[in-house]
Amino acid sequence: MRGIRLAPGEASRMALCDIPEPVPDRRGVLVRVRAASLNYRDGLIAAGQYPAISRADVVPLSDGAGEVIAVGDEVTRFKAGDRVVISCMPRWVAGPFEPRYAIEQFGVTHDGMLADYVAVDEEGLVALPDTLSFEDGASLPCAAVTAWNSLCGLRAPLPGQSVLTIGTGSVSLFALQFAKLFGAQVIATTSTDAKAESLKALGADHVINYRDTPDWDKAVLDRTNGRGVDFVVEVGGGNTLVNSLGATRPGGQIGLIGFVAGFGGTIDPLALIGKAVTLRGIGMGNRLDLEALVNAMACHEIHAVVDRIYDFLDYRAAFDSLGNAGRFGKAVISLE
Amino acid sequence: MRGIRLAPGEASRMALCDIPEPVPDRRGVLVRVRAASLNYRDGLIAAGQYPAISRADVVPLSDGAGEVIAVGDEVTRFKAGDRVVISCMPRWVAGPFEPRYAIEQFGVTHDGMLADYVAVDEEGLVALPDTLSFEDGASLPCAAVTAWNSLCGLRAPLPGQSVLTIGTGSVSLFALQFAKLFGAQVIATTSTDAKAESLKALGADHVINYRDTPDWDKAVLDRTNGRGVDFVVEVGGGNTLVNSLGATRPGGQIGLIGFVAGFGGTIDPLALIGKAVTLRGIGMGNRLDLEALVNAMACHEIHAVVDRIYDFLDYRAAFDSLGNAGRFGKAVISLE
Amino acid sequence: MRGIRLAPGEASRMALCDIPEPVPDRRGVLVRVRAASLNYRDGLIAAGQYPAISRADVVPLSDGAGEVIAVGDEVTRFKAGDRVVISCMPRWVAGPFEPRYAIEQFGVTHDGMLADYVAVDEEGLVALPDTLSFEDGASLPCAAVTAWNSLCGLRAPLPGQSVLTIGTGSVSLFALQFAKLFGAQVIATTSTDAKAESLKALGADHVINYRDTPDWDKAVLDRTNGRGVDFVVEVGGGNTLVNSLGATRPGGQIGLIGFVAGFGGTIDPLALIGKAVTLRGIGMGNRLDLEALVNAMACHEIHAVVDRIYDFLDYRAAFDSLGNAGRFGKAVISLE
Amino acid sequence: MRGIRLAPGEASRMALCDIPEPVPDRRGVLVRVRAASLNYRDGLIAAGQYPAISRADVVPLSDGAGEVIAVGDEVTRFKAGDRVVISCMPRWVAGPFEPRYAIEQFGVTHDGMLADYVAVDEEGLVALPDTLSFEDGASLPCAAVTAWNSLCGLRAPLPGQSVLTIGTGSVSLFALQFAKLFGAQVIATTSTDAKAESLKALGADHVINYRDTPDWDKAVLDRTNGRGVDFVVEVGGGNTLVNSLGATRPGGQIGLIGFVAGFGGTIDPLALIGKAVTLRGIGMGNRLDLEALVNAMACHEIHAVVDRIYDFLDYRAAFDSLGNAGRFGKAVISLE
Repeated sequence: MRGIRLAPGEASRMALCDIPEPVPDRRGVLVRVRAASLNYRDGLIAAGQYPAISRADVVPLSDGAGEVIAVGDEVTRFKAGDRVVISCMPRWVAGPFEPRYAIEQFGVTHDGMLADYVAVDEEGLVALPDTLSFEDGASLPCAAVTAWNSLCGLRAPLPGQSVLTIGTGSVSLFALQFAKLFGAQVIATTSTDAKAESLKALGADHVINYRDTPDWDKAVLDRTNGRGVDFVVEVGGGNTLVNSLGATRPGGQIGLIGFVAGFGGTIDPLALIGKAVTLRGIGMGNRLDLEALVNAMACHEIHAVVDRIYDFLDYRAAFDSLGNAGRFGKAVISLE
Repeated sequence: MRGIRLAPGEASRMALCDIPEPVPDRRGVLVRVRAASLNYRDGLIAAGQYPAISRADVVPLSDGAGEVIAVGDEVTRFKAGDRVVISCMPRWVAGPFEPRYAIEQFGVTHDGMLADYVAVDEEGLVALPDTLSFEDGASLPCAAVTAWNSLCGLRAPLPGQSVLTIGTGSVSLFALQFAKLFGAQVIATTSTDAKAESLKALGADHVINYRDTPDWDKAVLDRTNGRGVDFVVEVGGGNTLVNSLGATRPGGQIGLIGFVAGFGGTIDPLALIGKAVTLRGIGMGNRLDLEALVNAMACHEIHAVVDRIYDFLDYRAAFDSLGNAGRFGKAVISLE
Repeated sequence: MRGIRLAPGEASRMALCDIPEPVPDRRGVLVRVRAASLNYRDGLIAAGQYPAISRADVVPLSDGAGEVIAVGDEVTRFKAGDRVVISCMPRWVAGPFEPRYAIEQFGVTHDGMLADYVAVDEEGLVALPDTLSFEDGASLPCAAVTAWNSLCGLRAPLPGQSVLTIGTGSVSLFALQFAKLFGAQVIATTSTDAKAESLKALGADHVINYRDTPDWDKAVLDRTNGRGVDFVVEVGGGNTLVNSLGATRPGGQIGLIGFVAGFGGTIDPLALIGKAVTLRGIGMGNRLDLEALVNAMACHEIHAVVDRIYDFLDYRAAFDSLGNAGRFGKAVISLE
Repeated sequence: MRGIRLAPGEASRMALCDIPEPVPDRRGVLVRVRAASLNYRDGLIAAGQYPAISRADVVPLSDGAGEVIAVGDEVTRFKAGDRVVISCMPRWVAGPFEPRYAIEQFGVTHDGMLADYVAVDEEGLVALPDTLSFEDGASLPCAAVTAWNSLCGLRAPLPGQSVLTIGTGSVSLFALQFAKLFGAQVIATTSTDAKAESLKALGADHVINYRDTPDWDKAVLDRTNGRGVDFVVEVGGGNTLVNSLGATRPGGQIGLIGFVAGFGGTIDPLALIGKAVTLRGIGMGNRLDLEALVNAMACHEIHAVVDRIYDFLDYRAAFDSLGNAGRFGKAVISLE
């Protein structure tokens, strides 16, 4: 089968190869990958800048969706022809995170989605409903699961509560879309008026330009009668966290999300205590989260925000787009 | 009645006065204070170093217990002769914290426990069982409620889970005692071998001397098979928080507690994310918490750790003891 | 002031009286009642058929909304001129139900809303936003709070989950409206095609006529891919509960709601176990619930379904309407 | 290997056979069974009286513990020589119950523990600590997991809360032992004074003889100051449920547990509503529950109550003991 492999030590670092098809075991499912999407860390992995956990010659990309081609003898959840999304940590089915789940990640430790086929344990798959395209499905495993978990992993927003999202990374866009499904009011921040319009089109109730309004925490307080938001989906790390905390109501909740550039800031514990705020470190989520959000998207007929769909052989352009500040939504590669 | 008042601007700052007895309203209860206890912030208030919220001429001390003398017409929960503990934020009966609860605190905004009588809304009282003395009861409203909330306000430790306590402040001592009631294993830290013995006598399964073992997070990992503790009751603030986080298991929970000297440190967000740790800012708890812990203490016949009981007129010595590093347990003033 | 009192032993049982205005205490608020609404049990109370707890000469009606006229010295949450909804169990502010809350209920043990003024402890009030009329507000304290608690008192529906409502009583109508705010799919049952249309207009995704489809549990399974609904708001009692349980998914949740005619059925424990279903007995909810639902309604600009607004002096007609099978929505009395 | 198989249609119904050793797949673990235990339903299965789900010629017994002999290529959690307990529904690793987990149950649909070896997916195993014997381990998968889930699957008892257990079945004995680890007060019921003594020896704070005290709900109220218990672990089904509900406090929780003889009773919905009680149907629990309770037992050095240990070839006597009213604790078969 066709597949892209990292080529460590080489300038180009990625190359099209002929790779043997994977063979599923008794509970395994062979999936014909139809679309894959890129996340920020895929660029780090391709550049050899990701922690030692990633395999030097891995087939990249953690996120994909496709069609079931064949199933092992003991598979009960899927059959040939089913459309599926693939969990990026297929062993994390339910319950809380365990470190051992991280040692089996597609595109990191195990060959990923930039190939014609992938074999996945049936527990690592979620059925893709007809309302969602393969491109939608391929956009979900990392970013949408993280956004979903950050919103409802501890306690979910009630209708009428408020959610603050930061910037226009894919986690933030999914968080905005999902927060609206929960009936929440969404305040979003961004740096340009063009993106502000796009955020409003996605459902944001208020958008604050953080370039124009450096003390945007006060702007958030103004829009919440001085009280602050109930939830923050915080992707910016330490540098924005001081403002986020200022914008949070007493007793509110901040989901702190990883794998984003620009960490280095810090948190003042006294501010957390004074407001009795809960700060949750979030590292993706489990398959039940993926299942729940797919169901919510299907039920409400919403779709992933896709910036551009690249052809398989144009994969380098997709990787290049990760550094593009103007990107709005996922970079998706089609493997049709 | 007799009462001590702060005398702003004077050297001694506190003086015995003759104060009119408070008059309870329809739902109020008149309590004869029989014991009061001191917390760290009481020293700050007496020294005029507490935020503007505190009243300059307040009767100090937030924590007390006593006997019901009279009740208003509509009181249904108590009658004359009942023994009671008094909530230090009497309006915070149940549910999450609201900032307005903080504007009615005994010994801060309203006259506190260092007087013969206090009037309290019946919702701000908890019955004191026979197994608990007035000195026990007076030790609970601030420190024990904070410890209880930090352990079980989000999800409680399961039997066999592990709890790390830091030092020998009263919140930490209560957290140790309560964690044992939950069936948890307790690892405690302290700075002297003498205190280590006292912690073991209270039930600590392991004690680490953080003077001798500056990288005590590794010592905690050693004692938890390399996994880390499930819960930390973190009173030390930023300076110990780095170690606390290092000692916490993936998915664990840290309760961050206020009103302790020595803040100033910071938190590295990336460490929180990598471990998916939840950090809860804790500011005391509600009356239901006080009720639950009183019930637990009575059922298990445990008592507050009291360093020394001072006579009413010896109240200055009690305040002086707040700065005493050798103190182990609450400073209590008897108003018999 | 004008007020209607029950006149025990008389044929008409209710009469317009001249009643002294209530006097709020230090934390009390004097409210000019502007609208009141009727619930099923108000009819039982007026007919003398309610348990002994109700006062024979009470001013009826538990549910009302109005305007603040005056406040006691220590009131901090409201001021004259504020628009408010009144909790029907004003002592149940937060946390779980306690039996003692039930001994202070407007229109049952304490004079209720069918009078010009009522005095309420400030903790028993919720601010009424501008988007909601007094008629909206008066419709909420019993029925909407019960519906809200039944949906989210334990764990809330996620977007895309399904909620089954039974019939067109006010609790069911609020449950339908609120479930849509949570992003849920709603399946509703009713007995007439006309009401089915009204339910669809309120947002129901599917409506089943239980007259035409006596085994409507199977119809629910059909509409949920054979899985069953995630939540049931069960108002019918034992007689419909067998079907409700049949229509519930494994691991689902049934909120069982009181004060509805026609109890007498029973539950088969084995069916509950086989499906690992949780059955929650629901008796209204606390003030925080009322506050949360008012916020959700304001944020989404939805309104109570009001069948008809009666003039104050036409109150008997409002009571008569309680037995009217064609009623759809609340009977509200205006006290303008 | 040696194994016992059901022989459908024969009088004796069970026979010792020579069975091929199972072969674990890539993620499978081959376990040498060292002890197995019996549950009530094992008798029904052996007698051909269990629902169609059970395989006619299955190797019986769902519950076992043993030693790891070999592991598949991709196994990361265990290695040869490890001591393990085996989940009876090995696919239910975490999260809520799904019906498909029930179609892979040892001793029901798949060959069970009454054989020298069994192959199990690594996710279906829990490490057995040194403090627990194989007989302890073999006692846990059904009964202890059910007891644990019934106590803490929704919200756990707090120290000082009260738990009511019914009778001396194994679920009830585990519930009593676990409730004590949570710091709860336990009230137990039984029918003989001899068993009452045994229950007290296990830690019960109060024991009520339900033969002598038919209205034992009132006796429970007496022992809880008229309030009722916080939790009931209800194994008796409908016939005792009326009393259990009478003995439960307002807002309390009843875990309803299956596979016990004598169902047939019913529940009065009105009583559930009036007390706002939550009734949870419980069907075992997941592997995380098993892991948590094993950890709790090891930490507190408690052991399963074993009535008698039978030799492998004496397995018929073990099955016969299931109907023995005098049995107190598990019937365990040793496969040393």
